[in-house]
Amino acid sequence: MTGKTIAEKILSEKADTDVRAGEYVEADIDVAMAHDITGPLAFETFDDVTGDDAELFAPERTVFTIDHHAPADGVKAANNHNAVREFAAEHGAHQFDVGDGICHAVLVEEGFVHPGDLVVGADSHSTTYGGIGAFGTGVGSTDLGTALATGDLWFRIPETKRFEVHGDLPDGVYAKDLILKFIGDVGFDGCTYQAAEYGGGAIESLPIHERLVLSNMAIEMGGKTGFVEPDERTASYLEHQAGIECDLDGPTSPDDDAVYESIHTYQATDLAPQVSKPANPENAVDVGAVEGTPIDQLFVGTCTNGRYEDIKLVADVVEGEELAPNVRMVVVPASGSVYRRMLETGVFETLVDAGAIIQNAGCGPCAGYHQGVLGDGDVCLATANRNFPGREGSMDSSVYLASPATVGVSALYGEITDPRRGDPQRYDDVVLTEEVPT
Amino acid sequence: MTGKTIAEKILSEKADTDVRAGEYVEADIDVAMAHDITGPLAFETFDDVTGDDAELFAPERTVFTIDHHAPADGVKAANNHNAVREFAAEHGAHQFDVGDGICHAVLVEEGFVHPGDLVVGADSHSTTYGGIGAFGTGVGSTDLGTALATGDLWFRIPETKRFEVHGDLPDGVYAKDLILKFIGDVGFDGCTYQAAEYGGGAIESLPIHERLVLSNMAIEMGGKTGFVEPDERTASYLEHQAGIECDLDGPTSPDDDAVYESIHTYQATDLAPQVSKPANPENAVDVGAVEGTPIDQLFVGTCTNGRYEDIKLVADVVEGEELAPNVRMVVVPASGSVYRRMLETGVFETLVDAGAIIQNAGCGPCAGYHQGVLGDGDVCLATANRNFPGREGSMDSSVYLASPATVGVSALYGEITDPRRGDPQRYDDVVLTEEVPT
Repeated sequence: MTGKTIAEKILSEKADTDVRAGEYVEADIDVAMAHDITGPLAFETFDDVTGDDAELFAPERTVFTIDHHAPADGVKAANNHNAVREFAAEHGAHQFDVGDGICHAVLVEEGFVHPGDLVVGADSHSTTYGGIGAFGTGVGSTDLGTALATGDLWFRIPETKRFEVHGDLPDGVYAKDLILKFIGDVGFDGCTYQAAEYGGGAIESLPIHERLVLSNMAIEMGGKTGFVEPDERTASYLEHQAGIECDLDGPTSPDDDAVYESIHTYQATDLAPQVSKPANPENAVDVGAVEGTPIDQLFVGTCTNGRYEDIKLVADVVEGEELAPNVRMVVVPASGSVYRRMLETGVFETLVDAGAIIQNAGCGPCAGYHQGVLGDGDVCLATANRNFPGREGSMDSSVYLASPATVGVSALYGEITDPRRGDPQRYDDVVLTEEVPT
Repeated sequence: MTGKTIAEKILSEKADTDVRAGEYVEADIDVAMAHDITGPLAFETFDDVTGDDAELFAPERTVFTIDHHAPADGVKAANNHNAVREFAAEHGAHQFDVGDGICHAVLVEEGFVHPGDLVVGADSHSTTYGGIGAFGTGVGSTDLGTALATGDLWFRIPETKRFEVHGDLPDGVYAKDLILKFIGDVGFDGCTYQAAEYGGGAIESLPIHERLVLSNMAIEMGGKTGFVEPDERTASYLEHQAGIECDLDGPTSPDDDAVYESIHTYQATDLAPQVSKPANPENAVDVGAVEGTPIDQLFVGTCTNGRYEDIKLVADVVEGEELAPNVRMVVVPASGSVYRRMLETGVFETLVDAGAIIQNAGCGPCAGYHQGVLGDGDVCLATANRNFPGREGSMDSSVYLASPATVGVSALYGEITDPRRGDPQRYDDVVLTEEVPT
């Protein structure tokens, strides 16, 4: 038999068999997650499956968050929140509340996910966990409701598409630019039901918060999941950030003779900062192609780019400056711990002084629910992951996607701006080194 | 002729005639205000009235705020925000944006309102300005749209109901308790189309932020407006907070022989902290009657009690403590300047450390729009002004109204609690002295 990709290795281990792409397995789940939108539906399925004798497969590895409509922006949202609180309390699961943050940030930061784990979340961006070498994938509420009871799910082993970036990333190019470039190249459906593997020297040099960006947006090209091979940096991050020990000898390294659906190779020095134009993440272009596009709102946050380093980068860019007239900036930290670090380090005040509005940790306006919805004709430049029609509000609004650096510099000019027009010395070190709390 | 009440004096002056209660005048308006809900409707009327040759009666005394759905919690809200921005820019009016705060806080703090002014706002709590001796009153969007063009409006001179409180306020009793008591005594319609005048030693001793509470809630007993006679304290507050000079010789002192509809006299020492039970502010009872009522959410904010001293009082109560399990606290500063002071003084971090969620300055969940809407069965204890059915969300939710002290102490116990059960030494000085920024 040939060697295995990371996806094949993890699913083989979780199904206790030796499988390759295209085969089907029933695999054991390590961690299950749902949030305030998907949880209540999953609970209904769980109740149907279990009847009166209801037990979670592993309460200690089941996590529910309140992040999408947090704080409640309507009665339905408030009722969903209460449903999450009640179900979690009744079944002994972990439950995070308003302000604790986005599921994908919380699960990583709080140490629920280990390299090599199989994590299913009732949210499409559950691919995020691949940034620390876990098989993370999104499932529907019904599948999750079943999994909560049984602790396993059927999977088709995905083929794997490998993206390799060699050399050192040039100024102004971050993980967000890489993933937008990848999506642009293969298309929004270019990785449908495939795993992505991200490798090569430029990727290996990325700190964890940047690796999570790559995995997070694997779904934007249809990916079932997306991996960065975990290493000593992963172990150090998980030890300091999440307080957990990390086994690097698990099923998280692809074999040399693994078979890939295709391999896409990039030279880092060829790459420019990317912006995805409305209304699809695949509409990625070099920033120069859209420079000068006027902006109404800047949105810094989401499970893609709402981590401390992302927000600190924006703060470093705008420190002592004022936002351009007629732009508004909404900052939404991905987690409560990010929010608190922003307060402790002065990042919070820097942003407020510059004129930003900071919301509690959560999903914010990412999906157009609240906390900065776009009106007719509004143009937003966002660190988010999606820019489909109406994603952040009006069907007549537009969302451009970019890195925190591009968003920060553009905030000062009031139009889409090449981040290299800023002063990279002010902020480049932020993204190259991870600031792990001590 | 008999002497005049404050209402009679101000409207006589603004109509340049000598009138008493029951007469009608066309009076000159000093300041006009609308916000993101009422503004767009007023603009339509303004356009109808003025035709193409559109000019505001006084752009420098016209103020528009974005506070009720701020940040935008839906496309309609976002479109209304843009309408406010565009109309204000086109006509040269003052415009405050998301995060700048609630209209009534902004107009006072930024020096738009002087004692003796006639202020009309397209918001029912425009009575607030009486706390610094202005005739503030709420009008509909159509009336305001006309007034924006003409600079005057017809008024029936209101009768005046006088509330006098003598002696020193006992521990745990604040302006909020006084006004809840007044509303409870006269009923929600007890002051309909009347002016309230608040006087007596206990009222005279109140700092400005407390006086504004009394005037703010005059509307909750139907009041057309509600006055506290301005004095040196008012002048000092306006000088330091708002940067304006204040004329105490204006039409803001009632004559000794003024005729009142009725006079209600209280001895301060007889009073206890008040709570208004659902679902009407007139359901005021001594806190002891509802002690032990379990709470799900605490809401600190609004144009009634969202000022710095209110929030600092809550912070002093909860400092170093944790909120009771199963209660959530949403804090919404009334203005951007309150928000920034909270950051500068550590009040912000104290509240976050205790477990509170802090939103940008604005109206928050007060009217059930967003930022902490109540679900079915939820019980909220709020520093707000209204607790009508469904006010903060579900028609099956309940809102109790109380002072910041009562809300703060109750947050620690998780149920409605007499504020005197806390440690008044921790926070009583907060409310007795106004912390005017230097």
